[in-house]
Amino acid sequence: MQLKGEVTVVGRFKRLLIGRPMKSAEIEGERLTKLKALAVLSSDALSSVAYGTEQILIVLMAAGFAAVWYSIPISLAVLGLLLILILSYRQTIFAYPAGGGAYVVAKDNLGVRTGLLAGGSLLVDYILTVAVSTSAGTDAITSAFPSLHDHRVLIALIMILFLTIISLRGITESASVLAMPVYLFVFAIFALIISGIIKYALGGVDAHPPEIGAAVSNISLFLLLKAFSSGCSALTGVEAVSNAIPNFKQPANRNAAATLIMMGAILGAMFVGISLLAYWYGITPNPKETVVSQIADSTFGRGVIYYIIQGVTALILFLAANTAYSAFPLLAFMLAKDKYMPNVFMVRGDRLGFSNGIIILGILSALLVVLFHGDTESLIPLYAVGVFIPFTLSQLGMMVRWIKLKPANWIIKLVINTIGMLTTLVITLIFIFTKFGHVWMVFLFLPVVIWIFLSINKHYRNTADQLRINMEADKPVIKGSTIVVPVAGITRVVMQSLSYAKSLTENVVAVYVGFDDEDIERMEKKWEEWNPGVRLIVLRSSYRSVIRPLMKFIDTVEWKSAETDHITILIPQFITKHWWQYILHNQTGLMLHAYLFAQKDVVITTVPYHLNR
Amino acid sequence: MQLKGEVTVVGRFKRLLIGRPMKSAEIEGERLTKLKALAVLSSDALSSVAYGTEQILIVLMAAGFAAVWYSIPISLAVLGLLLILILSYRQTIFAYPAGGGAYVVAKDNLGVRTGLLAGGSLLVDYILTVAVSTSAGTDAITSAFPSLHDHRVLIALIMILFLTIISLRGITESASVLAMPVYLFVFAIFALIISGIIKYALGGVDAHPPEIGAAVSNISLFLLLKAFSSGCSALTGVEAVSNAIPNFKQPANRNAAATLIMMGAILGAMFVGISLLAYWYGITPNPKETVVSQIADSTFGRGVIYYIIQGVTALILFLAANTAYSAFPLLAFMLAKDKYMPNVFMVRGDRLGFSNGIIILGILSALLVVLFHGDTESLIPLYAVGVFIPFTLSQLGMMVRWIKLKPANWIIKLVINTIGMLTTLVITLIFIFTKFGHVWMVFLFLPVVIWIFLSINKHYRNTADQLRINMEADKPVIKGSTIVVPVAGITRVVMQSLSYAKSLTENVVAVYVGFDDEDIERMEKKWEEWNPGVRLIVLRSSYRSVIRPLMKFIDTVEWKSAETDHITILIPQFITKHWWQYILHNQTGLMLHAYLFAQKDVVITTVPYHLNR
Repeated sequence: MQLKGEVTVVGRFKRLLIGRPMKSAEIEGERLTKLKALAVLSSDALSSVAYGTEQILIVLMAAGFAAVWYSIPISLAVLGLLLILILSYRQTIFAYPAGGGAYVVAKDNLGVRTGLLAGGSLLVDYILTVAVSTSAGTDAITSAFPSLHDHRVLIALIMILFLTIISLRGITESASVLAMPVYLFVFAIFALIISGIIKYALGGVDAHPPEIGAAVSNISLFLLLKAFSSGCSALTGVEAVSNAIPNFKQPANRNAAATLIMMGAILGAMFVGISLLAYWYGITPNPKETVVSQIADSTFGRGVIYYIIQGVTALILFLAANTAYSAFPLLAFMLAKDKYMPNVFMVRGDRLGFSNGIIILGILSALLVVLFHGDTESLIPLYAVGVFIPFTLSQLGMMVRWIKLKPANWIIKLVINTIGMLTTLVITLIFIFTKFGHVWMVFLFLPVVIWIFLSINKHYRNTADQLRINMEADKPVIKGSTIVVPVAGITRVVMQSLSYAKSLTENVVAVYVGFDDEDIERMEKKWEEWNPGVRLIVLRSSYRSVIRPLMKFIDTVEWKSAETDHITILIPQFITKHWWQYILHNQTGLMLHAYLFAQKDVVITTVPYHLNR
Repeated sequence: MQLKGEVTVVGRFKRLLIGRPMKSAEIEGERLTKLKALAVLSSDALSSVAYGTEQILIVLMAAGFAAVWYSIPISLAVLGLLLILILSYRQTIFAYPAGGGAYVVAKDNLGVRTGLLAGGSLLVDYILTVAVSTSAGTDAITSAFPSLHDHRVLIALIMILFLTIISLRGITESASVLAMPVYLFVFAIFALIISGIIKYALGGVDAHPPEIGAAVSNISLFLLLKAFSSGCSALTGVEAVSNAIPNFKQPANRNAAATLIMMGAILGAMFVGISLLAYWYGITPNPKETVVSQIADSTFGRGVIYYIIQGVTALILFLAANTAYSAFPLLAFMLAKDKYMPNVFMVRGDRLGFSNGIIILGILSALLVVLFHGDTESLIPLYAVGVFIPFTLSQLGMMVRWIKLKPANWIIKLVINTIGMLTTLVITLIFIFTKFGHVWMVFLFLPVVIWIFLSINKHYRNTADQLRINMEADKPVIKGSTIVVPVAGITRVVMQSLSYAKSLTENVVAVYVGFDDEDIERMEKKWEEWNPGVRLIVLRSSYRSVIRPLMKFIDTVEWKSAETDHITILIPQFITKHWWQYILHNQTGLMLHAYLFAQKDVVITTVPYHLNR
């Protein structure tokens, strides 16, 4: 029982939190059906509906109310881009059935460094996603309950903790938890759109938006591009499905493709629907009330339905973070498999998820929330650039692939990916030019991340070279042994350590550090009297330090016999009955351990001594 | 060189901060002359002058301006109490030349538990002293520079850090740093008092305080007692000298007694002087300006002298904390020597101070400052009770001593200590009754502290019993050895580990944990091919954990051969060239180490493997 971590308090708490450990073979049961996948992987993309239209309108209002009609063609352009992205990611899914995130596609077709650029960009982006979306969800809560405003950071952190635990419980379990709110959100928004259209069709709306095509004096191409790019922030999260193919039930790629198309259709319909209603109802952005809230208010009034829509919207903004929780650990796993990230990201946890990736994502996003005191709005442009760079690279990778492999219909496929690449490239450039003040960090940050990846890789390759052996020539060699046993007196602990040492070799030396002559003489006399069959060497310390004279002595031993002998230092360790008693012992042992480990090339052996009371 | 911690960055930084290590024999040079002792040990007591009179006036003002004349008799009563305390502590110094803090005196005469009550009370009190006085000093700074108000906690923490470092540098060095401000403060206050008296004598003051003896309608005994006890908070810190006798130059007790009397004379003169001036100048307490500031303003106007007085006062409030820095580590040392606190408090550091006590005091008081956001005013009554409990116990102990030993003139000595005991007891009771809302915590906290002391003591005594050996009968016993080497593949690390293990015993087993049949088969084949002369045992893990199957295997080995063999687990440890590379390796080794340490009774040996690149 002890072996499964059941007996310890920590083990029991862990099990309560994340559930029983699962066998590796159970992984098939953890895979996702299409409907569950939609819930886990689309919350990020779908939640964009809550702010996409608003982002466009905010930019357009700079040219006055007359310009709001541009939101309709711009929304259609975003819809067009969404179509292109869906089509081109569908192609990626079939081309990379083992999971075709931007990292894999770019690495495969454009070389390792480009792949790392895409991968690093996405990793950073997932962290930003969690920070931004939990902060946004918190804002929705504190708008409803202003008294909670002072606890914003705490609320966001609790949310991150909740998402982390849910993710640690495993993929299907988190899908079950998440499915309901996602479907509720989709249902609520569609109900809103349909009711809104009916109300408008029946002439129940009394607004006079500017006619479509009306001349606007001070509109500029720059402004329109900026509005378009702002609208494109609604497309973040679309790539999640193609990353996550390994999590789907078989046939994984067909299921993933179907999920992607479902998601695209729902997202497109909701986005255009909200934009249309906003235009018809003559709604203008208002810092105190979101566009969706205004539409819901105009359609249903402030009744129960209004509050349900608001509540579900807040929920989905929170849950958008969950997409990152499924994508980040997978991407980290892929980078670790290729030796660009530490090995720990390859370990599947008790519930078969990549626990370390999940935990690191939780910690880093929590850090961001704390650093920005929950005001993560300034991170949004950064986050959008972080998505569109890998979008572009992934499309470019697919283009190269079609040209190289030339499969059936490759011209059509190439055209789709080329259009996709050009559009996402343009959007990336627009982001950079229109919001340089917010995104310049990317140009410092990404090179650092890539440099880290490459350093890790170089280190792992170097290590592998150093560890490789020649199976013919390299065999274990037997040498002599010298064991040094530091002693602090004559006690049962010392007796046990000496028993152990003498069982291994004849070459055992006990060392005692004394502070004055009297002390030293007494010890020497007592040792002679006890006569344990081991030579005692006594050192004198003028600086009250036990460590320094010992280190010096070990130096001497090394110098004299490292050629012929393995040198082992024996450190007794008290195992106390209660944890708090531990701080009452072992300090010198721990210090010695740390010093030896940091400075000496010797073997360190800890011999446990159990205190029963 | 490496041995003195010089080579490491940490070592060099430590040396820069606290200075070169000192030999144990240098301790005589670290002892204090009378003048330096006055600086180190009296800052707490003398700083009380900055607020003592004010505390009295604040209470009296509850009965109206007419009642302020009571401040004169009350100040004289405080002066009387000071005289008693000085006389009785002087007796203690000669009776306990090795240092007669309340802990020692109470333990010696009233039993261990009473001693622990006094000691625990003082320990807690020193922590409060540091927190309260750095916060008070910070308030003085932020009164002058209101823009710093938001950084109060940070300023207090920096001050604590500064005091901690100064104390770690050693006693005489901190005395040199502290002497100047203490003497400046004494000089400034005496200059103020003398100038103030001259101005008053020359008729330069135009105030009309109520005449002494004038009838006050609504004065009550309760109010007078409260005012008296508030004034007594000026006496905290008087006990510092008798604690610190071991830090004095020889003849230590004569020097200590002389220092105590100097301190008492200075403190008494300053306290009564300030109280007199406050009365003559008709000053009333004002939350925005301290009494000392008002007197200085009335005497000198807001010129350079005024600002010097204010600056020096702020400084002394800060430095009051330093008394605690010299007293806390000494008291912790005494408690540790008697086995009521962890051994670590007995270690003298590089600069011969008790570094661990100093560091713990810094950490705990910093924690208090952070917890209370620098608003430590509510701690003041707590702090006063914490001082008067050991005052009382110490006097009571002296009374018992005189009755038991009956030395020459013991009746006079007994009378002095009896008066002292009764007065401090009454003050303690007044504190408890008039400020119960602030001090009730003491009654929860002190029993807990004493319980901790007793638990630690019991544990150390138990340990000593368990470790004691019979020098005749108990000798080291030689047993067999089994060494288990967990391996993750066939690499140079494994080769080295096996070489080490085979050098010690024939009984070596390599263990490999495989995740599937294919994996296991491949490893078995490679091992056979390599043929290192060690048996390989292969375990299968269904839960992807390497640790659990290993722990189970070690259980089996223990069960089979713990009777006849010492069982050793060999864990290879990568020593990387750069510290950051360390996180790329060793995870499984560390986990295994932690699990084995917590759950198994086996010897753990770490074999270092150096990566050169």
